[in-house]
Amino acid sequence: MSSPVHDRFLSLGLVIPPAPPPAGVYKPCLQVGGLLHVSGHGPVLPDGTLMVGRVGRDLDADAGKLVARQVGLTILATLLGHLGDLGRIRRVTRVLGMVNATDDFLRHPHVINGCSELFVEIWGPDAGVGVRSAVGMGSLPGNIPVEIEASFELA
Amino acid sequence: MSSPVHDRFLSLGLVIPPAPPPAGVYKPCLQVGGLLHVSGHGPVLPDGTLMVGRVGRDLDADAGKLVARQVGLTILATLLGHLGDLGRIRRVTRVLGMVNATDDFLRHPHVINGCSELFVEIWGPDAGVGVRSAVGMGSLPGNIPVEIEASFELA
Amino acid sequence: MSSPVHDRFLSLGLVIPPAPPPAGVYKPCLQVGGLLHVSGHGPVLPDGTLMVGRVGRDLDADAGKLVARQVGLTILATLLGHLGDLGRIRRVTRVLGMVNATDDFLRHPHVINGCSELFVEIWGPDAGVGVRSAVGMGSLPGNIPVEIEASFELA
Repeated sequence: MSSPVHDRFLSLGLVIPPAPPPAGVYKPCLQVGGLLHVSGHGPVLPDGTLMVGRVGRDLDADAGKLVARQVGLTILATLLGHLGDLGRIRRVTRVLGMVNATDDFLRHPHVINGCSELFVEIWGPDAGVGVRSAVGMGSLPGNIPVEIEASFELA
Repeated sequence: MSSPVHDRFLSLGLVIPPAPPPAGVYKPCLQVGGLLHVSGHGPVLPDGTLMVGRVGRDLDADAGKLVARQVGLTILATLLGHLGDLGRIRRVTRVLGMVNATDDFLRHPHVINGCSELFVEIWGPDAGVGVRSAVGMGSLPGNIPVEIEASFELA
Repeated sequence: MSSPVHDRFLSLGLVIPPAPPPAGVYKPCLQVGGLLHVSGHGPVLPDGTLMVGRVGRDLDADAGKLVARQVGLTILATLLGHLGDLGRIRRVTRVLGMVNATDDFLRHPHVINGCSELFVEIWGPDAGVGVRSAVGMGSLPGNIPVEIEASFELA
C-alpha cells in the first residue's frame, strides 16, 4: 500500500526522467539523521540527455522556469529510487536554486518557482515549501541552465 | 521579561526594516529539529524597498559591507517576527554570504563582515560567529548587491 | 593510539599546509550536534600563500583539479587542528565545490573531484563520499580558483 502523498504523486501522471548516475565522486542522495540530502541536480530529460543554455541569453525567464521544473522531476527520480514512496518524506526543508544566468538577469525566484511549485503539487502548500535561496551562478556544469540541491525531512 | 541577549539588542537602538514577504514559493525561515534555517535575504530598507547594484562597479567594498549589514538587519526582522525574543537563539551556526560582484572583485569576506559583525554585536564574539562562506555570484535577484542565508541553533 | 583511518592518513605521506586563520568574522569549523561544519576554504600552499587564478582562463580543468585537491588538504589541516585524529569523523556528508570559472567553463565536477578523491583516499569509497554540488562562481575572494565548504558526521 502506498501513502496518500504517493497516491497523489501517481495521480499527477508526471513523466519522471531516469535518475541520473553521479557525474563525479558524490552520492545522489544521503540520509543524515532524520534528513535526506540531495546533491545538486540538473534537468535530465526522459531520454537521459540534459537541457542546456544560459537564462537571459538562450532562454527567457519562463523557459528557465520550465527547466527548473525538469530539475525538480529529476530530483523526484532520485528520491523515488532511494525511498520508493514519496510519503516517506515529511517535508521539504531547504532548496538551493542556482541559475546559470546572464549578469543582468533579475528573475531568479521566478525561475526556481518551477521546482518549488512542483514540490507543492506533491507535498502540499505547507510541507512542500521550505527555506530557499535562488541565485545566479557564473557557470554550471555542461552549461545546464539550472542546478538545484535540496534537503528533506523524513517521516 | 526579555532575555539578556534581547535586552542587549534593544539597547543597540537598531532600525529594523519590515520583514520581507516571500518573493517566491518559500518560507522566510523554518525550524528543523533544534535549528532555525533562514532563506536567502536581501537588503530591505526601512521603507520596504531593496538596495541594488553590483559591488566593484556600482558600489565599492565598504559600501558593499554596509549593504551586508542591512541584509543582517533584514534577517533580524525575520527572526524577530518568528521568535519574538532573540535570546531564543543559542548561536549562529552558518552564514552563506553571496556578493553580486564584478569578476575582478577580491574582497568578499570584507563585504560579508558587515553582517557578521552585526551578529557579534547581538550574540557576542563566540555565539555570534559560525562557519561561513563568502563568495561572488554571477547575478542576484533584482540586482541586489548581497544575499545571505543563515542557520541558527535554538536554545 | 590513533585510529585505523588516521593511520591510513599518516601512511599516505600527504604534505598538509598550515591551517588558515579566519580571513573574516567566522570560525574555520563548528560542531553542531553530531555534525562538524567547515567554512569555505581556499587552496593554501605549504608556505601559507594561496593559489590564485580563474579556471578556463589562467588554469585548465586538470590544473583546477589539483587546486581542488589542495583545498582538500587545507580542509584536512583545519580538521586535524580541531580533532587531532581523522578517525573521529564517521563520514563525509556534504561538499559544496565552488569554482572561479569563465562563463563558458563546463567541467566543474572534474575540478571538484580533486578534493573528493582525496577524501576517498582517507575515509574510503563509502564514508569518504557525500552529497555534492559543483558549480561556477562569478568571483571568489582574492581570486582563488576554488573554494569548498564541507560537512562531516562525527563518530
